[in-house]
Parts: sequence; C-alpha cells; structure tokens
Amino acid sequence: MADLLYVPADELARVRSDSGDPLRRAAAFAALCRINTLYMIARAGSGHIGSSFSSMDIVTWLYLEELRGGTYFSSKGHDVPALYSVLIGLGLLPFEQLHQLRRLGGLPGHPDIGTPGIATNSGPLGMGISKAKGLVRAARLENRRERVFVLLGDGELQEGQVWESLGSAANDRMAELTVIVDHNKIQSDTLVKSVSDLGNLKSKFEAFGWKTARCNGHDLAALARTLDQLRKVKDRPKVIIADTLKGRGVSFMESLPPGEKYYRFHSGAPDEQTYSRALEELVMGANQQLAQLGQSPLRPERVPRPEPARSAVPQRLVPAYSRALLEEAQRNPRIVALDADLVLDTGLIPFSERLPERFVECGIAEQDMVSQAGALALRGFLPVVHSFACFLSTRSNEQIYNNSTERRRVVYVGSLAGLLPGGPGHSHQSVRDISALAAVPGLEMLQPSCEREVAQTVAYCLREARASCYLRLVSVPWPVPFDLPESYRLERGRGVTLTEGADAVLFAYGPIMLSAAYRAAQLLRERQRCALRVVNLPWLNLVDSDWLASEVEGIRHVITLDDHYVAGGQGEMLAAKLAELGLAPAAGVLRLGVRDIPECGQNHEVLRAHGLDAEGLVARLSAALAGTIAD
Amino acid sequence: MADLLYVPADELARVRSDSGDPLRRAAAFAALCRINTLYMIARAGSGHIGSSFSSMDIVTWLYLEELRGGTYFSSKGHDVPALYSVLIGLGLLPFEQLHQLRRLGGLPGHPDIGTPGIATNSGPLGMGISKAKGLVRAARLENRRERVFVLLGDGELQEGQVWESLGSAANDRMAELTVIVDHNKIQSDTLVKSVSDLGNLKSKFEAFGWKTARCNGHDLAALARTLDQLRKVKDRPKVIIADTLKGRGVSFMESLPPGEKYYRFHSGAPDEQTYSRALEELVMGANQQLAQLGQSPLRPERVPRPEPARSAVPQRLVPAYSRALLEEAQRNPRIVALDADLVLDTGLIPFSERLPERFVECGIAEQDMVSQAGALALRGFLPVVHSFACFLSTRSNEQIYNNSTERRRVVYVGSLAGLLPGGPGHSHQSVRDISALAAVPGLEMLQPSCEREVAQTVAYCLREARASCYLRLVSVPWPVPFDLPESYRLERGRGVTLTEGADAVLFAYGPIMLSAAYRAAQLLRERQRCALRVVNLPWLNLVDSDWLASEVEGIRHVITLDDHYVAGGQGEMLAAKLAELGLAPAAGVLRLGVRDIPECGQNHEVLRAHGLDAEGLVARLSAALAGTIAD
Repeated sequence: MADLLYVPADELARVRSDSGDPLRRAAAFAALCRINTLYMIARAGSGHIGSSFSSMDIVTWLYLEELRGGTYFSSKGHDVPALYSVLIGLGLLPFEQLHQLRRLGGLPGHPDIGTPGIATNSGPLGMGISKAKGLVRAARLENRRERVFVLLGDGELQEGQVWESLGSAANDRMAELTVIVDHNKIQSDTLVKSVSDLGNLKSKFEAFGWKTARCNGHDLAALARTLDQLRKVKDRPKVIIADTLKGRGVSFMESLPPGEKYYRFHSGAPDEQTYSRALEELVMGANQQLAQLGQSPLRPERVPRPEPARSAVPQRLVPAYSRALLEEAQRNPRIVALDADLVLDTGLIPFSERLPERFVECGIAEQDMVSQAGALALRGFLPVVHSFACFLSTRSNEQIYNNSTERRRVVYVGSLAGLLPGGPGHSHQSVRDISALAAVPGLEMLQPSCEREVAQTVAYCLREARASCYLRLVSVPWPVPFDLPESYRLERGRGVTLTEGADAVLFAYGPIMLSAAYRAAQLLRERQRCALRVVNLPWLNLVDSDWLASEVEGIRHVITLDDHYVAGGQGEMLAAKLAELGLAPAAGVLRLGVRDIPECGQNHEVLRAHGLDAEGLVARLSAALAGTIAD
Repeated sequence: MADLLYVPADELARVRSDSGDPLRRAAAFAALCRINTLYMIARAGSGHIGSSFSSMDIVTWLYLEELRGGTYFSSKGHDVPALYSVLIGLGLLPFEQLHQLRRLGGLPGHPDIGTPGIATNSGPLGMGISKAKGLVRAARLENRRERVFVLLGDGELQEGQVWESLGSAANDRMAELTVIVDHNKIQSDTLVKSVSDLGNLKSKFEAFGWKTARCNGHDLAALARTLDQLRKVKDRPKVIIADTLKGRGVSFMESLPPGEKYYRFHSGAPDEQTYSRALEELVMGANQQLAQLGQSPLRPERVPRPEPARSAVPQRLVPAYSRALLEEAQRNPRIVALDADLVLDTGLIPFSERLPERFVECGIAEQDMVSQAGALALRGFLPVVHSFACFLSTRSNEQIYNNSTERRRVVYVGSLAGLLPGGPGHSHQSVRDISALAAVPGLEMLQPSCEREVAQTVAYCLREARASCYLRLVSVPWPVPFDLPESYRLERGRGVTLTEGADAVLFAYGPIMLSAAYRAAQLLRERQRCALRVVNLPWLNLVDSDWLASEVEGIRHVITLDDHYVAGGQGEMLAAKLAELGLAPAAGVLRLGVRDIPECGQNHEVLRAHGLDAEGLVARLSAALAGTIAD
C-alpha cells in the first residue's frame, strides 16, 4: 500500500511568510493546499476533489489578500476540503484536523458552523445568496457594513432559490455582496451544457440588476484586478463569473476525456494509482511555484494509507433498483424517468441510455422536476422522479403535495436515505424525509432491506400500487447478515420475521438498521439468553392492523428502530397504531432511532455515536428488557 | 339588503353568437363575464376580484379565438373566478355553478381538476411553467404538439421556481409554450415595485432564452396581433408581458388611491355599497359594448344577497398576534420580522409601520426569506418569519431544516393554519404543516386557542423558549364557547381542561376544533349523560409525560382531535407517547382529524363534510364510547 503524502505546517508557513509578490505567494500556497486537499480526501475515502481544485485559487486569494475581516463561504459547500486546507494552512484551524476529514469530531463533509472559520451550514444548493443577504442585513442593523463573498457552483445556478434571491439584493443595493460563480462547466454528473445549459450567464445576472464581471478563476492577477474594480462599485451587488476547470491542477481531472460521458472526479476518492499520478503532478507544480518564490523544493510528510475497511459481499440497492426500473419500463411504455443531475447516484444510467426518449434530465431543479412529473401524470404517464431523499422530500415538498391533490400516480425515489453514509454530513443524511412526506395523502412509503426486496418494492410501486409511492433507498453498499425467507413476498402493510423470539419484538426496515438489530439479537441470545424477534417492516407509513396484532400478541416488549429521526418515523406510526388498537403493551413501546442532528464521520463511528450499532442496541435493549432477562 | 345581479345564460349566448367583429364580440363577452365574476365573489363572500378583472380580457380572448384545442391554465390560480365565468359563458361549465363559488360541491376557490375545464391544480405560486412543460413533454412523447398557454401573475415572478423552470424550456425549444404575465403591477399587499421590484422583465426572460413580447393586456387587438406574431416563432418558448390593471373595469379598483398604502381588492368580497358602485360601472360598460355590437341593453337576473352568517363575538388571533409581536419587539431590539407579501394577512402592518428598520419585506420568496432569517440568527438577531402555514412549512421546508442544523433560534409563524377558512380550497388549507416540520430538530410547535393564549404563546416563543418555534395561527375569526381558566398560564408540554369529565378525555388545540369538541361535550352530556373532558393542549409536537399520565389516569377512552391530517398530527404524537409510556388504554385511542384532501366550501359545510363539526364529533364519539354510555 503506497503512502499518502501531505504538506506539514512549517512548509505552509514558509510560503505564507514570503514577503515578495503576493500573486506568486498565493499561487504557491494554493499549490500546497491542493496537495493537502488530495491527501484529506484520499485519507477520508471520499470527498469532492473536482470542485475543491476548481475553487482553490479563488479561495486562496480571498483569504490571503482580499477578505480582511469580511466573510466568505461557499454556497455549494462540497468544495469545503479546499477551504479546510486553506484555513489549516493559515493556522485558522488546528493542523491535526488535516487528518480528520469526514471523521467523528473532525471536519464534516459539508460545512458546519461547529468548525472554526465556517460561516454558515451549506451543502443543500442554492441557499448561499439568501444567507449572504441575511448577513448583510444583520450588519446594517448594527450600522456596520460587512463585506460578504459567496462562492456558487455553476450547476447550482439551476436551483430556483438562486434567482429568487437576486432581486432584493439589487433593490436594496447590497454592494457589500460579491458572488463568485465557480464556472467550471461540469456539474455532478457531466457537462453543465448537457444537463441544463445556463445560456448567457452574464446577461442573466445583469437582467437582475447585478454588476457583473468575468475572468479566469485560476489567473490570480486577473482575479485581483476584477476584485479591485468591483470594490469601487458602491450601488449594486456584484457577481464574478470565474472561468475555472473542475479538477484544476491535475491534468486528467481537468476535463471530460473524449468519449467519456460522465465526469469521474466529482465525489468519491481516488484509487491508489490515481492518487499517485495526481500527487506527482501536484508536487511537480508545487515545486515550480516554490522555485518562483526562490524557495527550496517541498519537504512533505508521508503516512501509510489507511487500510480500507473490508467487508462481506455487500447488498447494493441502487444497482438493483436500476435493473428493476429498466425492466419495468421496458414492459410499460408509460413509464418516464426524471432526474436532477444525479444519474451516477440514482442508478439511471442504464435507463437514460436504453430509453433516452423517456428520460428527462431536469438539472438541479427539484421543484421544477416534481411539477413536470405531476403534469406527465395528468396525461396518463407514470413518472418516476429521482433525487437524493434529503432534497426530494424537502426542496419539492409543496410540489409533491400539489401533485397529490390531483390524485394521479407519481412514484418518487429518494436515494442516499438514512443516517449513512456518514461522510457527507447532516445536509445529506436524510433522516427527516418520512416525516416530511408522511401526511401527503395517497402516498405510500416503502423501504427495501436488500436487493431481492428492491425488486419486489419496485414491482409494487410501478405495477400494483393504486396510490403514489415514495421508495426510500439506502445508497451505501451494506453487507447484511440476514436472509429473507425463500418464500417471502412483499405484502401491503405486512412485514417478515428475520429472527424468532418471544421475549420482545423489534420492528425495523432497511439494510443498516436491520443488520444492527439482527446482530443485536444474536448478542442478546448469546449473552443473556434473551430471544428478540426482529421483524423487517418495509412499509414506512402504513401497517396492516391484523398482522400487527398477531405480531405483538403475547409479547411483553415492543421496540421500534428507525433509520430516521424518532419524531415522525415508522416507530411513531407503529406506536400510535398500537395505541389506537388498544394493543400497546403495558411495559411501553421503546422507540429507537436518530434523536439529534446526525454526526458526520465514518459509518461505524456515526452508528456508534448515535447508539445505533449492534452494541449500542444491546445496551439500550438490555436496560429496557431487564425484566425479561432477569426471568 | 340590495339584490345581487348576474348575467343569465341566454344573455351570454346572444353575445357569443354574434357573427361580427371578433374583437368587439370578445370585449362584450368579457364585460358580461366581469359582472358574473363580481356576482360570484359577492355571493361567496370571498374571492379575488382584482386579479380576476385583470386577467379577464386575456382569458376571454384565449378561449374565444386563440386556444382551438390547446390548453390554458392560470399558474397563480386565484384569478379563477374569471375563468369560471368564461367557461360558464361558453357552456363549458353548467350554468348553475355560477351560484356555487366556494361552496361544497361547487367551484373551488383555487383551481382543481375536479372541475370541468380545469387543466391542473394551482394556487401555490410558481409551479405553472413547470407544469406546462410537463404537458408539452407528455404530448411530445405521444408524437403530438400541444400548445399550452399559462398565465402568471407579476408578483408570482418573485418565486424561484419560475426562474428554475425557464432554462430547460428554452433548451428543449418548447415553442408550444406561451406564458402570459398578467402584469398589473399590484401583488397581494401593494405595488410590486414596493414589495420587491422586478426590474426589466423583458430582459430577464430574454436572458433565459425566451422570445418576449409586450402589449396592453386589455387591448384585444394588440393581444391578437401579439399572439399572431408569436405563433410564427417555432424555435423557442414565448412570453407576453401583458400590461394590465388590477381590478380593470371598475374605476376605483384599478389602482391604489393616492395616499393608500395597501390594495383593497386583492381578496375578500365587496361590501354592499362597494358592490353597487362596482356593478353600476360594469353594467354601463357592458351596455356600451352591447351597443357596439348593435345589440339591446343587458337584461340581467336579480337574486337576493344571501344574509351573511352572524355569529357571537369572534376571537381574532392574528390581530392579537400582531399586538403581542409589536410589544415584544419594542422591548427586544434584536427581534426582526420577515414577511412574504402578506402583511395584510399576517398582522405585520403595525410592526412594519412602527419598526420599519427591523421589518424585511421579502416578496413572494419563502425560500429566500427563511435562509435570510437563518443568517440573521447567526448574527444574534431573533428573526420572526411569516407566511401562510401551507407555504412556509413546505416551500421552505429544506431551508427551515438547514437553519435548524445551525442551532440558532428562529421563530416561524404560519397563519391561515388548519382546515378553515374553507373557501380558498386545499392549496391554502394547511393541514399538513405539523407533519412537514415535526422532525425538524429543536423546533417546538405551538398553537393558541384564543386571543389570550396568543399573547402567552408569543411571549413563550420570543422570550422563554430555548428552541426555535413554529407558531401556528388560525386566521379565520372564530367565536369560541369556552373560556380558559382565569389562572391559566402556558406551561411547556402541558394543557388545560376546558370541560370536566371522567368518561373520556379528548385532546385538541386551536379555536375551531376546541369549539367543536366543547359543543360536542355539551351535547353528549345533555343527550347521553356522558362526561367528556375536553383538554386544550397547545403543544403540537411535545408533551409532558407526567402531565399526560395524570390526564389519562383512570380514563377508559382517549380521543385526539387534529386540525390537521390525522397522519403526522398532534394525535399521532400523543398516541405514540401513550404507547411509549405504557399508558395507552385497552379500549384504544381514537384519533380524529382530517383524513382526506380538504373539501372547499363554506366553513360550516367543510367542517360537516369532514365530520368535524359538533354533531359529527358526537356521532363518532357516541359510537366509540358506546360502552361508557350504556353504563
């Protein structure tokens, strides 16, 4: 296993303290920070390289030369490794945090104000200008003028809130506000122009009354000149369209190679070989910059690359979904798939390639996507709408309800659901979607636990259901210790037993919580001779009363376990149903799940921190079942 | 009581069948439809006159001369009385429906596809272009070209989804699509330019790649010419900026009188004198148009004006809120109020006049408003964010969550909450907001039952609470038959008994459901000697366990009553909590509330239709409590 390499604090310090040309100093500083950014992401095992490298020169220049007490933040947020490496390089964040990206207690995958130097929580796209306006207003209320710089992605400009936020900034003459568009022309999946072309950006911003400028976002001299010019504009908010390259600094990350349809370095981590090749280029570039400063070559530190966690063959729900959807669509010509710039993550590549005429790429525009889907349903199509669960259930919440009032069938598929992966942080950990959609009339919500159940739930949603459906998918590949019985067939409102037991029954869903519960049941049996029955109930907002009654009959302890906040989750629905039926046990119903804002970290760290790994469950259950165990 | 006057079917027919100049015919037809629109709204007791009159000429021309099989709908939706009167005039809707605006089984206050001739459900702003795109896509999938015309309000253009929807229409060359902006320059409260100026609309749409044209929206010849020209454009979607007058046709409704700050004819119904003056002008105008056609003067029908329902002195929660907020803000200089073009409805006029420097009018831009509020909170202000509950809880759902992850205090105030008023229809009947926000961490939700409790909840939210708060306000004035005990003081998680009783306990909140429950308790006592204890629990997503235990101790029947969908409402939270505590009664917990999409109609009709008036509750409770009653 090759080592990972980073630039230590003293090496950063010698560049920072260079007293010569600020442009050369910043260029060298950025070059070192790129090495550290690559290191952080490679070590973490995931992160956004392309976007971090694209914004690196801008962020460096702002912090070294421009901010002077002003505020900067990134609205897109996922380029935060670049910002972290700059903050670390400037001593504004403890250097040891370099090793703690996406770790518990470390640096979150998306910005969080719990980290020193982070101005706002971002990650959900499109909120940045609104937030910047709030900061400007707050300062004005205190008779101050606060300069605020916000970085936006170009793909992010597809979000409606961006345009919603422009008008009042111009009307209120917020000259304190400078937006920088990191215009690297590649969004999550591929080229912006292929996803949803932005047209003439400059005239768009100008039409909204903003002062606009355009420059090369890697040419620090041009950037400095542009910022100088804009500083003189006192009557309007300003926007710089900074032409950049995604992955800037590593030749093979800087574009979409000819013939490739998707960009490979938006998120994730480089493999060993890719890391080495990228590092080589970055070190060479850094040494050139150091030479320009008249400084000696880089003296990096080396550490062993952490062993990636090995696990049993995982269940991969999204690919299973991908296959099942395509199969259904090949059978039913009324199925139309809609996506919001996430085909790489939502499993839509096969569909988009095989059935391009029935695939609608909407860009990062969830509200628009959902309302379009509603109209397709009005005309008798069966639209299947895709995004990450955290965005689909919330950004387009009113649009989903509006569709439901037309009583036509729409299928919503929210991936990246639940507490894991823990790396991206709370903006992406979707543990509120069940609640956010629970009261949408005529919407049935399902979550499969393994690949086999994915096929059955897809068949249900697309063929059998009479209602609209929300299919909730865990994206992280997960090895599961249980098997569904051979004979298992999905039945509306009913679940299936994974472990037998008469001391207590635990209801859960999805691969992660069911795995933890299954292992907890094994441990309880081994250690305490307590027989916990674990039941997979893939229905999130409905349950068959007869089945539920038979499941809890004669059972003293009922436990629910949500891959969601306890509030508004499946457990609340089940507990209320038991109360309604007069079947709630005298010992009470114990509801487990997420109780506070999700921690960011490695998956096992996050599960443990929330008490939702097997050992955490055993501890909670042992206490609760004390009576039974003592028997 | 003066009569109301309408234009009968045969009178409309004689204009429709005129075979002369289409321009004159349409002008006369529109003149008659204005009379009928005024009639419908006056009879219903509420509706949107200004917007209906502003779009009337456009709608008339489209239906009489332009559509020819194409599709039209209004995205803003609240001008639907104009559309109804045109559809009725054309025989596309049964004539008797003219008398049934906002009545159960009649014509909803906002468009619903259950009504013949209505293409989509609208009312929530900003969705129209997205929906139109969906219709265009559906037709293209069937190898058809469907022309779709969508009317947007100008205030509506402040919504981000509008701009989110423009790009792909241009990229996909949707020449089938024609947007008409009803540019009457007055939005809900007042002048668009005072709320959030739109700048140069033409260049905005052009920057998004749309073909734009501008004309007088009341000059049918100009409108016809513009539509003719645009029909020839085959490579782009088109937008007509139609300059109109809100309230067109009635001189004193056509502008904001000098010195008046707010427009008076956006919603509501004219009083008797206003009706008569408006009618006089409209009839005179219609007779002039008829003369132009060489036809005899109008022969209208007269019907008596329905007596308005008289009721006891109602509780007016919004004015009480208004006073309480101002008082708190005068004491606490960190309180900032934000609004989304609803000062007339959210009670913010006193605040905006007395503390203008701490008032932020955001326009119809809920996402932008909520994110701005989050940033103000980051800087130590206490932002109080206002809109209708239906929009605030859903349109800005993700933004509220994002704010919550920063763990700063923001107070959200959702008015127009609950099932009533029944007139506006389901887009505005907010019966899903508790669920949509229930899992937002650190958010406490409260709903006061009367003016006195408003003051206490406001004091709690703005002074005592440590968490963020969502204050849910019923807007419709409501006479309540109960009094809170003199000694009542709001206590976190606890409620207060309104009627004593040991046979059953019913938990509810808010003036409407508590009134129904209180009356039901009286009826049950009188008719069946059954003692129902009605408890006001103003806490929507939390409850004190000890208090709850004492409330249900020794009680055989527990009932919850939600002014919300049963799913995700207070009742679900309470039932789950009882199950958790092992306190759910063996007889079960009966959960009452809204179970299907809210009906539109007069308030008493809607309550009855959902079984939520006193008699409906008695029927449900009698059945459920049969055991007790038999004792």
